[in-house]
Amino acid sequence: MKNTIDELEAKGRAAKAASRRMAYLSTEIKNKALHNISNDLLARQKQILAANQIDYKAGESSGMSTAMLDRLMLDSSRLEAIAQDVLSVAALPDPVGEVFDMRTLPNGLQIGRKRVPLGVIGAIYESRPNVTIDISVLCLKSGNAIILRGGKEAIYSNSALAKVVQEAVTRAGVPDGAVQFVDNTDRTLVNHLLKMDDIIDLFIPRGGAGLIRFVTENATMPVVSGGIGVCHTYVDKSADVDKAVAIAFNAKVQRPTVCNALDSLLVHADIAPRYLPLVAAEWAKAGVEMHCDEQALSILKSNPDLKLVPAADEDWGKEYLSLAAAIKVVDSVDEAIEHIERYGSGHSEAIVTEGYGAAMRFLNEVDAACVYVNASTRFTDGSQFGLGAEVGISTQKLHARGPLGLKELTTYKWIIFGSGQVRP
Amino acid sequence: MKNTIDELEAKGRAAKAASRRMAYLSTEIKNKALHNISNDLLARQKQILAANQIDYKAGESSGMSTAMLDRLMLDSSRLEAIAQDVLSVAALPDPVGEVFDMRTLPNGLQIGRKRVPLGVIGAIYESRPNVTIDISVLCLKSGNAIILRGGKEAIYSNSALAKVVQEAVTRAGVPDGAVQFVDNTDRTLVNHLLKMDDIIDLFIPRGGAGLIRFVTENATMPVVSGGIGVCHTYVDKSADVDKAVAIAFNAKVQRPTVCNALDSLLVHADIAPRYLPLVAAEWAKAGVEMHCDEQALSILKSNPDLKLVPAADEDWGKEYLSLAAAIKVVDSVDEAIEHIERYGSGHSEAIVTEGYGAAMRFLNEVDAACVYVNASTRFTDGSQFGLGAEVGISTQKLHARGPLGLKELTTYKWIIFGSGQVRP
Repeated sequence: MKNTIDELEAKGRAAKAASRRMAYLSTEIKNKALHNISNDLLARQKQILAANQIDYKAGESSGMSTAMLDRLMLDSSRLEAIAQDVLSVAALPDPVGEVFDMRTLPNGLQIGRKRVPLGVIGAIYESRPNVTIDISVLCLKSGNAIILRGGKEAIYSNSALAKVVQEAVTRAGVPDGAVQFVDNTDRTLVNHLLKMDDIIDLFIPRGGAGLIRFVTENATMPVVSGGIGVCHTYVDKSADVDKAVAIAFNAKVQRPTVCNALDSLLVHADIAPRYLPLVAAEWAKAGVEMHCDEQALSILKSNPDLKLVPAADEDWGKEYLSLAAAIKVVDSVDEAIEHIERYGSGHSEAIVTEGYGAAMRFLNEVDAACVYVNASTRFTDGSQFGLGAEVGISTQKLHARGPLGLKELTTYKWIIFGSGQVRP
Repeated sequence: MKNTIDELEAKGRAAKAASRRMAYLSTEIKNKALHNISNDLLARQKQILAANQIDYKAGESSGMSTAMLDRLMLDSSRLEAIAQDVLSVAALPDPVGEVFDMRTLPNGLQIGRKRVPLGVIGAIYESRPNVTIDISVLCLKSGNAIILRGGKEAIYSNSALAKVVQEAVTRAGVPDGAVQFVDNTDRTLVNHLLKMDDIIDLFIPRGGAGLIRFVTENATMPVVSGGIGVCHTYVDKSADVDKAVAIAFNAKVQRPTVCNALDSLLVHADIAPRYLPLVAAEWAKAGVEMHCDEQALSILKSNPDLKLVPAADEDWGKEYLSLAAAIKVVDSVDEAIEHIERYGSGHSEAIVTEGYGAAMRFLNEVDAACVYVNASTRFTDGSQFGLGAEVGISTQKLHARGPLGLKELTTYKWIIFGSGQVRP
């Protein structure tokens, strides 16, 4: 269980070498590899669960929280679900090899762009061992080699799963070295890994805000940054009140711990007296704590069943990740858009309105990965969007925005077929 | 002529504010702005050339090289050429607003991606004042606001040109603040500018390798990195010798100072005795110095007219930017591909071959922005590729690869039209 920096470099070189051959691996071999993984997860259930038990017991005796233990835990039904997910990725179309923008120039050169894998993808993740399978499968299907580094709390589980993946893909004909697992969880090795920009083309951090920030700040290669969502829902003066209640309720309550959940509710002053008491009553039933600006507070304070808190400055632009939300009354769609521009994180923003002009302005002017009219921001998700699966949600503007599916794990190269052309 | 950091921040905020409105500016207004710029460059010729004279004289008296002075110099015919280039950008299709991948999900949500500008683009450049116009025009056409910072050697020229741009675009209805010019050339302000990642979405450095490296290493926002091209041409055993001579000659000699020029010539051992003397004789006429490995040297040394140098280790992977090239004899297409993988910079690589298998392997396996069969690497260029114009050539894999045209100055956002949908 030791990797020195030399061993890490050797793993990197092996992944890089494999990536060259993976760039033109057939879809057939990649799918076969995924089917093998799915089968082996079930066939080797006993070893995987035994390894997971070691991590679980270590977690228990070190006083890990119930929530963390739950994330760490694997059992038959979870393994079956993971194996099933692998098959759905196998069923997705292969993004690699597509040739687009192909044309013949006046000088006879045939020129086009061909979709190719990025090369080598690095992944650092915490607690949930299923990420080992998740990321491996998406990277393999998109033709990338991968270097995995999971958290030390799941080291036995991750090792066992990585071994399953490595053996399953080799059997299918994927080049040796395509899946690398770093089984030393020493932090100094992570620092070294984040500087291996001659080897790793993209880094994916999966875990809490601390991990994501650490990777973003220290990696010298591009990082899929995201995972932070300060999401607003703006209820316009012309909103359908029932829709607006249902949307805000869903966006806040359906799964409050995730990045696409509602954080701030902006309500037009004309509709606030009618709308706010309704949504607040629903939210209260689910236990939502409401951080209200003065106007919202004056509208809601007569209802003793609500958990009301006067909003502080830090409530605007706060990602709650819990059953809490900020509420602000605004005087116009302009004020809503300006508030979002100032406090949003470029993730998912929604307007609820029956006004065509307000809807179009919001869609045009709000600068975020996903902009909604009359729907819950909770839909921001690779499988909800029909991408099949996702490695994360990007709030960056370059390369790809929003849910990152298989296609977003690829790049292109220009291919040029000549017959002796030279530049005049 | 002073900008403090506060003033720089204010310019940044003004550009950011303008960028929100520019995201949905009509093509008509953008094209009108470009036409105004083109007209005003000619109408204000006198002021522009007078400003340029101040820079030119300062350059002369500070002992600037003739080549540098030539790059700095503007005259009527150069201004006319610049004005003409502006019109060609106006004639290009507007990349912004395209909606793609639009579809209706089973739950009735209509979802698609809409092409939008990146936002605010920063540009740092040296000597050539035409870059002020060049970058402004490409950024404006693609709907981006821009912060320009030219070199101090061209400060009067750049100020005059930036003023023309600012007035011309305002007259067309482009929002105030869309074009910002930093007229203080203090280095500490550059350092500050490179950290303004809350304002600037992409940075474009234009100039020598030193400037590009400085920007890449210090900017906290994404940078169009590129401009460095270590380009190989591999002459396969089955190459048509005449084509191979013409291609290698063109790639090395037609414009040796640019990034897509040939640096290393790899030649299959079977064809080297026949091919190398022919290409070397042509190169010698143009004054090319040849850094040869042992085998190449033994083939060529009998010709006293050649400038031959035994290759040193540092010749492999060297970007010459001059009339010099490295020559290596290889035993197989594998060896050629491995050499390119090790020493290439991911810019432009070519094979000359009549063998179908070798051509396809080279296209599949070489990992570079542009991969050629039977053509000169000198074609790697936005207008040669039919993109109309370029802001640079990217050797990165994320976002865009190769020549960056208008479309590569944009991103997309997901737009979602709902009718009250919530996530189950």
